[in-house]
Amino acid sequence: MEYINKDFLLENETAKNLYHKYCEELPIIDYHCHLNPMEIAENKKFRNITELWLGGDHYKWRLIRACGVPENEITGDASDWTKFYNFAKIMPRIIGNPLYQWTHLELKRYFGYDGLLNEETAETVWNLCNSKLENMTVRQMMEMSNVIAVATTDDPVDDLKAHEMIAADKSFNIAVLPAWRPDKAVNIDKDGFVDYIAKLADVSKTEIKDFESLMTALVSRLEYFNAHGCCASDHGLDFVPYAETNTDEVDAIFRKALSGEKVTADEAEKYKCFILNKLHAEYVRLGWASQLHYGAVRNVNTAKFAKLGPDTGFDCIGNSGDPVKITSFLNSLAKDNNLPRTVLYSTNPNDNYMLVALMNSFQDDSCRGKLQHGSAWWFNDTYNGMRNQLTALAEDGVLGNFIGMLTDSRSFISYPRHEYFRRLLCNLIGEWAESGKYPNDEKMLGKLVSDISFYNCKEYFGF
Amino acid sequence: MEYINKDFLLENETAKNLYHKYCEELPIIDYHCHLNPMEIAENKKFRNITELWLGGDHYKWRLIRACGVPENEITGDASDWTKFYNFAKIMPRIIGNPLYQWTHLELKRYFGYDGLLNEETAETVWNLCNSKLENMTVRQMMEMSNVIAVATTDDPVDDLKAHEMIAADKSFNIAVLPAWRPDKAVNIDKDGFVDYIAKLADVSKTEIKDFESLMTALVSRLEYFNAHGCCASDHGLDFVPYAETNTDEVDAIFRKALSGEKVTADEAEKYKCFILNKLHAEYVRLGWASQLHYGAVRNVNTAKFAKLGPDTGFDCIGNSGDPVKITSFLNSLAKDNNLPRTVLYSTNPNDNYMLVALMNSFQDDSCRGKLQHGSAWWFNDTYNGMRNQLTALAEDGVLGNFIGMLTDSRSFISYPRHEYFRRLLCNLIGEWAESGKYPNDEKMLGKLVSDISFYNCKEYFGF
Amino acid sequence: MEYINKDFLLENETAKNLYHKYCEELPIIDYHCHLNPMEIAENKKFRNITELWLGGDHYKWRLIRACGVPENEITGDASDWTKFYNFAKIMPRIIGNPLYQWTHLELKRYFGYDGLLNEETAETVWNLCNSKLENMTVRQMMEMSNVIAVATTDDPVDDLKAHEMIAADKSFNIAVLPAWRPDKAVNIDKDGFVDYIAKLADVSKTEIKDFESLMTALVSRLEYFNAHGCCASDHGLDFVPYAETNTDEVDAIFRKALSGEKVTADEAEKYKCFILNKLHAEYVRLGWASQLHYGAVRNVNTAKFAKLGPDTGFDCIGNSGDPVKITSFLNSLAKDNNLPRTVLYSTNPNDNYMLVALMNSFQDDSCRGKLQHGSAWWFNDTYNGMRNQLTALAEDGVLGNFIGMLTDSRSFISYPRHEYFRRLLCNLIGEWAESGKYPNDEKMLGKLVSDISFYNCKEYFGF
Repeated sequence: MEYINKDFLLENETAKNLYHKYCEELPIIDYHCHLNPMEIAENKKFRNITELWLGGDHYKWRLIRACGVPENEITGDASDWTKFYNFAKIMPRIIGNPLYQWTHLELKRYFGYDGLLNEETAETVWNLCNSKLENMTVRQMMEMSNVIAVATTDDPVDDLKAHEMIAADKSFNIAVLPAWRPDKAVNIDKDGFVDYIAKLADVSKTEIKDFESLMTALVSRLEYFNAHGCCASDHGLDFVPYAETNTDEVDAIFRKALSGEKVTADEAEKYKCFILNKLHAEYVRLGWASQLHYGAVRNVNTAKFAKLGPDTGFDCIGNSGDPVKITSFLNSLAKDNNLPRTVLYSTNPNDNYMLVALMNSFQDDSCRGKLQHGSAWWFNDTYNGMRNQLTALAEDGVLGNFIGMLTDSRSFISYPRHEYFRRLLCNLIGEWAESGKYPNDEKMLGKLVSDISFYNCKEYFGF
Repeated sequence: MEYINKDFLLENETAKNLYHKYCEELPIIDYHCHLNPMEIAENKKFRNITELWLGGDHYKWRLIRACGVPENEITGDASDWTKFYNFAKIMPRIIGNPLYQWTHLELKRYFGYDGLLNEETAETVWNLCNSKLENMTVRQMMEMSNVIAVATTDDPVDDLKAHEMIAADKSFNIAVLPAWRPDKAVNIDKDGFVDYIAKLADVSKTEIKDFESLMTALVSRLEYFNAHGCCASDHGLDFVPYAETNTDEVDAIFRKALSGEKVTADEAEKYKCFILNKLHAEYVRLGWASQLHYGAVRNVNTAKFAKLGPDTGFDCIGNSGDPVKITSFLNSLAKDNNLPRTVLYSTNPNDNYMLVALMNSFQDDSCRGKLQHGSAWWFNDTYNGMRNQLTALAEDGVLGNFIGMLTDSRSFISYPRHEYFRRLLCNLIGEWAESGKYPNDEKMLGKLVSDISFYNCKEYFGF
Repeated sequence: MEYINKDFLLENETAKNLYHKYCEELPIIDYHCHLNPMEIAENKKFRNITELWLGGDHYKWRLIRACGVPENEITGDASDWTKFYNFAKIMPRIIGNPLYQWTHLELKRYFGYDGLLNEETAETVWNLCNSKLENMTVRQMMEMSNVIAVATTDDPVDDLKAHEMIAADKSFNIAVLPAWRPDKAVNIDKDGFVDYIAKLADVSKTEIKDFESLMTALVSRLEYFNAHGCCASDHGLDFVPYAETNTDEVDAIFRKALSGEKVTADEAEKYKCFILNKLHAEYVRLGWASQLHYGAVRNVNTAKFAKLGPDTGFDCIGNSGDPVKITSFLNSLAKDNNLPRTVLYSTNPNDNYMLVALMNSFQDDSCRGKLQHGSAWWFNDTYNGMRNQLTALAEDGVLGNFIGMLTDSRSFISYPRHEYFRRLLCNLIGEWAESGKYPNDEKMLGKLVSDISFYNCKEYFGF
């Protein structure tokens, strides 16, 4: 039997029935990704499988590097064939890694390849994929995957022109919505802050001279995003900040930074906590959901960063989040009715139970599952990472409210990760049911897995 | 087959044999609970299943809240039927949560109900339970569960009148003993400390003007508790404190607090470490066991706390404990021979291996299993939480010395959690035996599971 | 069927095939142990099983203590028979602990005993083992285990005389190489530092009066070790240190310590970070690998330490490592090309994914798998500890590059832990293959398990 077969990851009969009957045909909403919307607008084609697969995927780069391949043959000026061949060659060593599984799912779903990728088959696969890619556009890739909506990740200063072009093109029916990622306006302690504020002033046609005018500028951009269909924000945080402060103090900190002076760590935390509060009040007003990603340690290898820049595979899992700080932050929002629907993600898998426990202290009757523990993120986007996230959520929270999977990906063929998630979910529920831990009631379980695979997400974001 | 059947959670033949032959009939000692002893003394009846199940159970409230139900229909003035119906309705969504399992175990054991609880069956279950409750008292519930002894959780200022009434009533044979929970005398940094000390002075008929007289008052209450059969203390700690200090310094800190001045965090830690030392010396003298629960972050939602008060479902898992601090604290006891039998509990499941490893550095020949890693607590009281605690204890410690399960519950029908624990324990041991990891020797394994289910606890506390 | 049978731990057919065909016959390289090389040089015999098993094994002592046995009958002057009998007696209680499994593996492999050890069989086993031990030397034990090379753990001041004697003895073919463990030169904040530096000066015939001369002395010892076949260093660190500093500052700190003054925690961290940098530059120059063990909390029980000294079973799992500090340290090496092949070990099992993620930010093309997440260490050297380490490594790294198992042991009959590891590895891979998570391709999986069991380690260290 081929590796990627009909019942891949479905290890019991209940799981098979649940997946094929209740999940397989459901469309995909990818509520958080890093696709380049202009590539959709222009309906890009890829010159070959290397550009598509290895052009920007630092997950793959890291594994190839770990096998001792020279950087030149990974991200440098070696030929596309060499780069692809190196990747094919390491495949048998990465058994146990989800990349092995994703790679073969993608080969099967987009290129119809049933075999294994390795040194021997590299050339066959290269030829097969490249020949198919001649007639495959990014829009087709998305359509092949039954995607109905995606949310990209966009900076407040973006003009959202690509999103406008896509919306205007009646020949393409997948919703491509912007998501608001204002990290550069929040990171007062990072290089480039002053330049960024100047750019924001320019784009928003607002003179930014104090915290108030900063918020005026941001609100004008929020409205612009909102008018373009945006329904979610996303914050990438080193850690969830919390500090007592006030407008005057934050205004002084902002002016200090704007004058080019370096702010202290305490000042930065005050500013961040305060601006996040102000922004979240806006999210509530606009009916958006908030996503908080915390805990990555980025660019830890100085020499590689100097050579290759950010997002090239030199980031790590950070410390566990501090539940006192996270709950204090959420409480500062909740007590002023400024807590929107919020999804919490940590890079650290040890935070699973802690996040589930704390988020349930902020649920309310504005909607079902207002606070969400986000799907296993980044380094946790693995078989056990997902299973452990689902288990923690089920054991200390309400699994049936979960909004499920997202790709968080830069790739147009990463949608099989939704399939992977759905199969794993059905398998886990099936295990519970067949072992008698929970009742094997098809109607109940069918609703559970389809809600988590699709309907909850649709309702939560209002897609 | 009904959901809660004879072999619920018993997934292999060895497990079935071990459970039914060696565990099922054993009585229950619930060595740590939060029952109201006056309700036992008065042999309370409940007006309906809502009062019994949803009157004070913040585990359930949290899950109902997470489903978007208005607070009024959870803890407010909505009708009992509405509250019950809301709970019934969310059941299919909480698949994976132990509450689903506990709920059905309780429906089966106390009300003989074999079906599932959900929106459709809510009315049937409501009628069935309420009709049975007309003729069921709390003492009967305990007797139905084969309970032989429980330890409640009592403040040093309690008069233990209820315990006296129960002891004097020869028609009731279950031992209901007090346990000593002096948190309010320890929490020098919390609101209400001065008032509490005044109350303690009053009850103990001791003028408390310095640390020495505080201890005199506490010791008189310890003796009072001891005379009422108390054999265990319990401390709820934000974290296990450790700081070098001395009598004079602590005396000054105590006087400062008594004068109404706020103590610093450092001062509070010194006081706590010192008074815990003094109290533990008393526990050794009296032959009591000590329980240390640490790591909850409580009342994180200000608005809800203002409205609903403590213990209403707004608490979380805290940071991991600090092994340096915990071992320093235990060592400060051990070096002066003031370390009693001690049970350690953390809310954070990441602490399992760490706690097992450190407790084994303080074992001695005063008894078998002197230091214990307490059963999976609060947010960890789940299928995997228990399994992981048992596994860590087995892998780095001596499983066969474990004192096993407690309910930690406010409910009179939470005893099936002991059954749940025993089934899970037998299942785990059975798995090991049937997979050949450990020998499938019935006599050896039968002794193991019955010791952990009952006999070790009996010996440890001297019930 | 006997407990330790042909297919012990092999729970599926693929696992059985992989183990018996690809792993069982492979020799053992034990690249990190604590054997006393003089006992090999002198080809020691043991007077009985107690001396062999219970002479220095604090893993066993801890479990016996936890069962309430008096210290005198564990490490004191009780008879060897009494000590052995106590150990035999607790066996049924430690079900779930790897010591149960190791004990029976050792009884089977070295003494041919097929039964269980317990109170009833103690005398039989005592007689059997002691009779076999009359004719069994330590070299024979190693040969029986198919060991081809071991690396001991040696202080820079050691004369390596035992290693020379072994190398000169042509009748013995197992390589016994020293490994460089300079903790005493690094631990500027620990008692005995000044005396140790004097000893180092003496052995290296170098006057040590400043940091420069300290390095001169150490480099002369490094060369000496290198000439004796050393190819790896090992550092036991409370935590991985990181602090910005410079030669002048470190020189002042070293002189301060040398003058007998106590250095501060900050000074100690600067010194440690700096000397580790200098040493690692040497490791690169010599082509050695580095091992970093961090996170043990040692000697936490003052009274027992005073009586029994270090390494007697009063150590614990420490806090999680700090990924910011660890990556900063590794980066300080990498940016100057001073990062050798490095193996990272934490006592805290919560660090698994974090370590795997961060090490992959420092891989390069100098070799395959340059950075390694070390095999489950100390308290993690258990069934689930190993399985979790393998899973984390596979999910976020490249399992196929793993250098595999080491004993870390003081015992001459601990080699079945390699067998245990290989069986567990094959079982895990077999599970993945039979459940369809990864392809069941014998050639591919056979290479994977044999590489991890033997070949990767051989290549990595250059044995």
